[in-house]
Amino acid sequence: MADESPLSSEQFLGRTNERDLNEPLTDHAEGQLFLTEAFKIIVDEVLRKGTDVKHKVCEWKEPEELARLLDLELRETGEPQQKLLQRVRDVAKYSVKTSHPRFFNQQFAGMDYYSLAGRYLTETLNTNLFTYEVAPVFVLMETEVLRGLRQLVGWTEGDGIFCPGGSASNMYAMNLARYRLFPEAKSQGLYGLPRLAVFTSPESHYSVKKGAAFLGIGMDNVILVKVDDGGHMIPEDLDEKIELTKSQGAVPFLVSCTSGTTVQGAFDPLDRIADVCDKHKLWMHIDAAWGGSVLFSKQHRHLMKGADRANSVAWNPHKMLVAGLQCSALLLKDTTNLLKHCHSTRATYLFQQDKFYDVNLDIGDKSLQCSRKVDCLKLWLMWKAVGSAGLAERVDKAFVHVRYLVEQMKKRDGFHLLGEPEFVNVCFWFIPPSLRGKEGNADYQEKLAKVAPTIKERMMKQGTMMVGYQPLGNKVNFFRVIAFSPLISQKDLDFFLNEIERLGNDL
Amino acid sequence: MADESPLSSEQFLGRTNERDLNEPLTDHAEGQLFLTEAFKIIVDEVLRKGTDVKHKVCEWKEPEELARLLDLELRETGEPQQKLLQRVRDVAKYSVKTSHPRFFNQQFAGMDYYSLAGRYLTETLNTNLFTYEVAPVFVLMETEVLRGLRQLVGWTEGDGIFCPGGSASNMYAMNLARYRLFPEAKSQGLYGLPRLAVFTSPESHYSVKKGAAFLGIGMDNVILVKVDDGGHMIPEDLDEKIELTKSQGAVPFLVSCTSGTTVQGAFDPLDRIADVCDKHKLWMHIDAAWGGSVLFSKQHRHLMKGADRANSVAWNPHKMLVAGLQCSALLLKDTTNLLKHCHSTRATYLFQQDKFYDVNLDIGDKSLQCSRKVDCLKLWLMWKAVGSAGLAERVDKAFVHVRYLVEQMKKRDGFHLLGEPEFVNVCFWFIPPSLRGKEGNADYQEKLAKVAPTIKERMMKQGTMMVGYQPLGNKVNFFRVIAFSPLISQKDLDFFLNEIERLGNDL
Repeated sequence: MADESPLSSEQFLGRTNERDLNEPLTDHAEGQLFLTEAFKIIVDEVLRKGTDVKHKVCEWKEPEELARLLDLELRETGEPQQKLLQRVRDVAKYSVKTSHPRFFNQQFAGMDYYSLAGRYLTETLNTNLFTYEVAPVFVLMETEVLRGLRQLVGWTEGDGIFCPGGSASNMYAMNLARYRLFPEAKSQGLYGLPRLAVFTSPESHYSVKKGAAFLGIGMDNVILVKVDDGGHMIPEDLDEKIELTKSQGAVPFLVSCTSGTTVQGAFDPLDRIADVCDKHKLWMHIDAAWGGSVLFSKQHRHLMKGADRANSVAWNPHKMLVAGLQCSALLLKDTTNLLKHCHSTRATYLFQQDKFYDVNLDIGDKSLQCSRKVDCLKLWLMWKAVGSAGLAERVDKAFVHVRYLVEQMKKRDGFHLLGEPEFVNVCFWFIPPSLRGKEGNADYQEKLAKVAPTIKERMMKQGTMMVGYQPLGNKVNFFRVIAFSPLISQKDLDFFLNEIERLGNDL
Repeated sequence: MADESPLSSEQFLGRTNERDLNEPLTDHAEGQLFLTEAFKIIVDEVLRKGTDVKHKVCEWKEPEELARLLDLELRETGEPQQKLLQRVRDVAKYSVKTSHPRFFNQQFAGMDYYSLAGRYLTETLNTNLFTYEVAPVFVLMETEVLRGLRQLVGWTEGDGIFCPGGSASNMYAMNLARYRLFPEAKSQGLYGLPRLAVFTSPESHYSVKKGAAFLGIGMDNVILVKVDDGGHMIPEDLDEKIELTKSQGAVPFLVSCTSGTTVQGAFDPLDRIADVCDKHKLWMHIDAAWGGSVLFSKQHRHLMKGADRANSVAWNPHKMLVAGLQCSALLLKDTTNLLKHCHSTRATYLFQQDKFYDVNLDIGDKSLQCSRKVDCLKLWLMWKAVGSAGLAERVDKAFVHVRYLVEQMKKRDGFHLLGEPEFVNVCFWFIPPSLRGKEGNADYQEKLAKVAPTIKERMMKQGTMMVGYQPLGNKVNFFRVIAFSPLISQKDLDFFLNEIERLGNDL
C-alpha cells in the first residue's frame, strides 16, 4: 500500500496540506470521542438541568441578539472540537426545554428515556423504511406496532403506515378515500370529476383544509359542520350538509371527525357520525392525532366509542404518549391493499420483483415518500419498557391532573373556565383583579383579550414556564394549559396557578 | 408533602401496587442511567463494529426467524432494564449497517459524527419548527442554512423550507408552480381548470408521478421527455412536447429536471432547459436531491450550470453530504412569500397575531406539516465542523473513487460498464466466465439478467457487502454501486471488485 512506502518531501507536504482522498475522511476514534462528549453535554443541559424546576424553561433572547450569540454563519473552514462542543452547549442553552415540568405549551411536552434511546438508535442506524433488504428489523417492527395500535381501535386486521406528522396522515386518508371512489383520479387527475366535498367541524385541525388545497380538492370544498357548545360535531347538521352538498351537484366522499380537538380537546360523537357515513356511504376518517391515546385507558377509552366503525384513524403517539417527534400512525381498516394501489408507482430500481425474498416485505411503495424515517422503534421500545399498562397510566395520570387543576381553579378567584374539560386541555381566562365584576362594561372583552398576551410575554421573558393562548370564534384570548407530561407532579400545577396570578394580578 | 408522613399499611400496599398519579411517572436517575447504557451499546454495536470491515454489513435472517428472534409482541406489562438493553443490542445486531464501508447499496450510505451529535441533540430537545416561541434557535438556524445552500445555487435572496424527504420537496415545488399560475386552485380546487401538464424525463425520480397523482393532476399528465443515451433530458424534445401538449388543450406549468438521476446519475442540461422554460414561461424545478451536493465542489459544480435560472431546487444533504435521514431542502428563488401564500391557513391557535415578538418569525404556516421536525441542526453542526471545504472534499473524494473503480473495471475481465459515469453512480454488468464471448447467443440477455440477483442473494446471506441492482428500459439487471461514503478507502473498492468476482465467477 502507498501508505507504507516512504514519501518524498513533496509528497509529504502534499499530504499535510490536503488529505489523501483515497483514504477515509473520518477518524472514528476522534468522532466517537466527540460524540461521547456531546452526549454528556446533552444529558447535563437538556435532560438534567432542562427538567429541573430550578432552571428556566426558556432563556428568552430577542432574535437579533440570539443570532449574534449563536454565530450561525457557515464558513469555508471547520472549527476545533472544543468550539463545536460549546456550540452543542449553546444550542441546548437557548432552546426551549420542552421536557421541563413547566412546559405546558403544546401537545408535545414531556419525554421518555426509553423512547429517547430508541431515537438515538434510529438515528445511528440511519436506514430507510422502504425495503426488507435495508430495514429488516423495522419492516417487521412497524407491522407489529401498527397491529398493536389497530387492536386498540378494535380491528383484528387492516393496514397502516407511519407518516411524517398528523397532517400527512390526514392527507393520506383523504387521498385513499378519493381513490376508493374514483381510482381513475390517480392517472387522469380531477379534471373529469365532479366537485368533491369533505366534511369536518370548524374546530378540526387545519390540516384538513391544507390537505384539500394540496390535493386539488380546494379549501372551499371543505364543508364545515356545526358544533355544539363543547365543540363536538353535530351529526344532524352533518347529514343536512351532505344532502345539501349533493343537491348542489357535488360528491361528498369523506367525513373527517376529530377525537380531541386542538383547542378544547373535544371528541366528536363517533357512533352517530358513523351512522351518517353509513347512510351516505362515505369514508369515515378520525383525526385522533391528539386524542387517540385514550384508547390505552380502560377508564377513558369510551371517548372514542365507535372508532372501530371508521375507515381510517390518524394517531400521533408523539403527543400524549411522549414517543418523540415525529411518530404519527395512519391506521386503516382496509384489507384490499388500498394503500399500495393508491400510492404505488412500481419503481423498478427499488422494488425489483426478482428478489430472493418475498417482495411483499418491500413496503415502500405504500408511501408517498421515498426515504421514510423509522418512526416505529422509539414507540416499540417504550411500549416494551412500560407495557400497555404503563402507557395507560400516562393517560390516566393526565386526567387526574386535569381534575385537580379544574378543582383548584374553581377554588381561586380569577380563573374562569371555558367549560368543563372533556379531555386534558384546560381552557380558561385569567381575570385580573381590575376586571373582576366588570363583565358588563363595554370594553371588558377588549381588555380581557390583552391579558393572556401580556402574561405570556412576562413568563417568556422570565422563563418560568410556558403556556399557550388563543382566541376561538367569538371568544377572546384564553389560556390553554396542556398538562399531560408524565414528568409533572401536582406541585407543578400549583406553581402554574400561582405563577399566572403572580404575573397577572397587576393587570 | 404526603410522601413525608408515615403511611398506613393500607396506603403502603396501595403505593406498591399502583403509583401515585399526582407524582411524576419518571425516575430521571434511572432513565439517564438507561440512556447512558444504551448509548454505550449503540457506539459499540453500530459505530465501532458496524463500521469495521471485520464485521458483517448485515446479519441476514429470513423474516419468520427474525420475527422470532426479536420477540416483537407488545404486551400489557413492561420489561426490566437489562432485557431492554438486550433489545437495543438485538435491534442493532440484526439491522443493516448503512455506515459500513461496504454498504454500497443506496444514496444514504456513510455517517458523520458531528451530524450524529446534532441529531441526538435534536431528538433530545424534541421541539417543533413552527414558531419562534418554541424553536428560537432553529427558526434562525434554518434560515441561515437555507441561505447557505441558496448561495451555492447562485441566489442572493429567496426562500425555502426543509421537507420530510425529496419526494415532499418535489411535491411542494409542484404545488407552488400550480399556485403561481392558478392561485384560485387553493380554494376552489382543480375542477374549473384546464388539464395541467408536468414535464420530466423517464429517468427522473418516481416522486414526480406520485406527486401528480396526489395533487390531483394525474400521472398521465406527467409528460415524459426523451433522453439521450446517457440519460439526459433532450431540450428539443421538451420544446416539442410542450407545443404538442398545448395544442391538445392542456396547460404546461412545470418542468422537473433532474441533477443526478437515481440510476445513472445523469445531469439534465439545465441551461438549455432554462431556455425552453423561459420561452414558454414555465416553472423550472430541479430535483437535485441526489446531485445537488456537487455545488460544493469547485471542480464538479459545472454539472449544474444554469441551476440559478431555476425557480426551485430540491436538495437532500442526507445523501452525499451524509447529514443523516432526513435532511431535504426545498430552495426557492421566490421573494414574494409564495410559500406562505400557497400553504397558509392561518390557524389562530398557533399563529396568533398579537404576540410580543415579530410574528414573521413564526414560519410554520409555510409548511404543509403542523409538527415539523428540526432537520437543520445536524447539517449546521456538521458544516461548522468541517466547513464548506470539508463538504467539498467529500464530493471530490467520491469522484476520485469513481474514477478508480472505473479504471479497475476496465482492467478486469467481466466488468462491463453501461457507460462512462458522469456522477458517482457506477452502473455495470458482471459477465461471469460462462457468458463471456456469448453475446450473440439467443438466451444471453435472459441469462445475464439472472446474474445480479444471484450474486446479490449470496452477498446478503454472507453479509460481506451490499450493492443494488435493477433493470432500466430494455437493459437487463445491472449493478449500481454507490461509492460516495466518506468512510471508505480504495481498499474497500478493491474488496468490492474481488467480492463480485468471488460470488459470481461460477455463474
